[in-house]
Amino acid sequence: MNECSSRRQRLQHKMKQSGIDGCIVTQNVDLYYLLGSMQTGYFFLPTEGEGIFFVRRSFVRAGEEADVTVQELGSMRNLGSRLAESYLQLFRKPDGQPPILAAEYDVLPVQQFQRLEGAFPGARWVDGSMLIRETRMIKSAAEVALIRESARVIDMAYEAAIAALKPGMREFELMAVVESVIRNNGHMGLMRVRGYNQEIITGMIGAGDAAAMPSYFDGPAGGQGLGPASPQSAGRRPIGTDEPVLIDIGCCIDGYVIDQTRTAVIGRLPDDLMDAYELSEAVLRRTEAMLKPGTVCEELYTSALEQVREAGLSEHFMGFGSDQVKFLGHGIGLEIDELPVLARGFRYELEPGMVIAIEPKFTFPGRGVVGIENSYVITENGFETLTVSREGVASVYTAKE
Amino acid sequence: MNECSSRRQRLQHKMKQSGIDGCIVTQNVDLYYLLGSMQTGYFFLPTEGEGIFFVRRSFVRAGEEADVTVQELGSMRNLGSRLAESYLQLFRKPDGQPPILAAEYDVLPVQQFQRLEGAFPGARWVDGSMLIRETRMIKSAAEVALIRESARVIDMAYEAAIAALKPGMREFELMAVVESVIRNNGHMGLMRVRGYNQEIITGMIGAGDAAAMPSYFDGPAGGQGLGPASPQSAGRRPIGTDEPVLIDIGCCIDGYVIDQTRTAVIGRLPDDLMDAYELSEAVLRRTEAMLKPGTVCEELYTSALEQVREAGLSEHFMGFGSDQVKFLGHGIGLEIDELPVLARGFRYELEPGMVIAIEPKFTFPGRGVVGIENSYVITENGFETLTVSREGVASVYTAKE
Repeated sequence: MNECSSRRQRLQHKMKQSGIDGCIVTQNVDLYYLLGSMQTGYFFLPTEGEGIFFVRRSFVRAGEEADVTVQELGSMRNLGSRLAESYLQLFRKPDGQPPILAAEYDVLPVQQFQRLEGAFPGARWVDGSMLIRETRMIKSAAEVALIRESARVIDMAYEAAIAALKPGMREFELMAVVESVIRNNGHMGLMRVRGYNQEIITGMIGAGDAAAMPSYFDGPAGGQGLGPASPQSAGRRPIGTDEPVLIDIGCCIDGYVIDQTRTAVIGRLPDDLMDAYELSEAVLRRTEAMLKPGTVCEELYTSALEQVREAGLSEHFMGFGSDQVKFLGHGIGLEIDELPVLARGFRYELEPGMVIAIEPKFTFPGRGVVGIENSYVITENGFETLTVSREGVASVYTAKE
Repeated sequence: MNECSSRRQRLQHKMKQSGIDGCIVTQNVDLYYLLGSMQTGYFFLPTEGEGIFFVRRSFVRAGEEADVTVQELGSMRNLGSRLAESYLQLFRKPDGQPPILAAEYDVLPVQQFQRLEGAFPGARWVDGSMLIRETRMIKSAAEVALIRESARVIDMAYEAAIAALKPGMREFELMAVVESVIRNNGHMGLMRVRGYNQEIITGMIGAGDAAAMPSYFDGPAGGQGLGPASPQSAGRRPIGTDEPVLIDIGCCIDGYVIDQTRTAVIGRLPDDLMDAYELSEAVLRRTEAMLKPGTVCEELYTSALEQVREAGLSEHFMGFGSDQVKFLGHGIGLEIDELPVLARGFRYELEPGMVIAIEPKFTFPGRGVVGIENSYVITENGFETLTVSREGVASVYTAKE
């Protein structure tokens, strides 16, 4: 069966379980996932039967890309009546009840939603974003293959960065090396993130104290950034010797992202930071031992917390003090912030096809961040590591002045 | 007076005129504009007096960056009661009416909005996005200076692209040259766009028929892109000889974007495309003659339509046929899609401080796109051109096989 068709059926199954009559999908990434096209428009998916993609632009291109019926949107005001004609039973239910329609409340702006409400007078609206995100949580073999390709390309960029790493080089200059390699090898030039106000700038490269600065970014090490207008990721700080350089990078090939972190140093890490780095690898190893179908996501997080507490580094784990983030990892796919999240409250059991970036890191204010991040796919019997970059602290030796 | 304080006062003036009691600002770019900080949180601005920035993270960094009172957000549920304490008169109005609160409906997701509604039971909500966008439409000298800097950097990138342009080079490889130059000269790694589902990937480089493909992107030439998961901007098409190469690029320095377009060719353009290019410059010249305070924005568009009709190229203007876009230009600043828009229905009169990218282009399906785009600031007496790149078709000569 066609890949997108199977995705829509899985979503329809969830819709039915939730008592939803139809879903109106508008976000570019969700459209691409369900249709193979991210032209702008409205995709209506009934709980049973085939959906219709009403396209604003480009209609021609949507027709070439999407595997469902494509119609020109025309006037938004008429969308409701056109759907009512096409899906008579759904909009005139035998019990006289209004249709229950779902939309992506987590990304849909209020203005857009009000237009939808106006086009469907009498409909009852509910939030469908978790249904879509849960459908997307389980990746197909084809999706995993694309993430594997991104993993291959980011490894090339990582090795280029290590080769280029020199004292005095600025963080953003090292990031420019990474970006040039990935761009010339298929990276589409940006990485998508779903969370409101969140941005990804190829990840983050941070040296010493700059990496350890707290940030608005919902991750353990956001970085200093270039200034208040870009207060995360690589900044202008020169990279020094004997301090950790956190290289947390990703790329996006044919829509699918990878996320990996390595720690490098020019010279030698202080012993206590080296110990913390080794603990991050130990946390990763113990987490890997739990990566199999049936493990509950939050247990991966609580197990890591326990391991870190035993080692006496709780205060430094995943950020420092009040700026700590409360997770160990996150799903990746078309976006960098997918389900499942490895955090308290996430009771999903691991399933084959979940792809997760796991990123134990330790923050030392004024000194830097050390850690590691690999991405994994859960398999029938355990896991496969998608990240291919060599582990361990990458030490670059340089003649001291 | 402090720059951000003056911006807030201008917004407060508009709020008062609209009968709004307070505005809750959440979007990162709007926060940065009003506070000098884009940490995550809620900025409450009353119609009179000082606002408070309730910060989720990073509280420390927000305190360093923002020029208003900063408080830790804590529980979102208590936001309403905390504000009611701080702004007693506003939340207990003498006339017994509920407070009228504005939010950014054009970007605020439904989920976030529902949380706000829950935190302020009894408030009446209205869309404040146009008030904020109209405030941002008029740039200060400091903002214009940053756009000028972006213009300087994008010119360096343009010259590097022309120097690198060779037959057989792929569009994305030429874009990688541009991206490397801007990244090493202060570009923050992404350009912000406000419109739902819109993305900017450093602009677009497109050769021949690839540039002329219709796209979802709300611009005259979106480009082919790398595939359905990135269906705009530079793609894998090799650049040939004697065909137009559209180089529509921008960068973002300290938050402020520039947008410019030039047309290049390896060899020689066919005569009719050269004529169309020259018409794009003629449209720009006639538009420039109207760039002064008092001119109504839509008249710039209708005047260009008239000029193009007289030249017999209406069908090719700003896209082809049904894929045409209906504008001549757009404001730029912190985002690429700011006010004013040079289009029908936009009755704003030009004012000093408006910064506008004007982009007459002609699309020839199967053959390519030619055109030019400069960015301008409106001054007391007319305009200043911010774009510094040389005009004219950049012809690269190459030994024919």
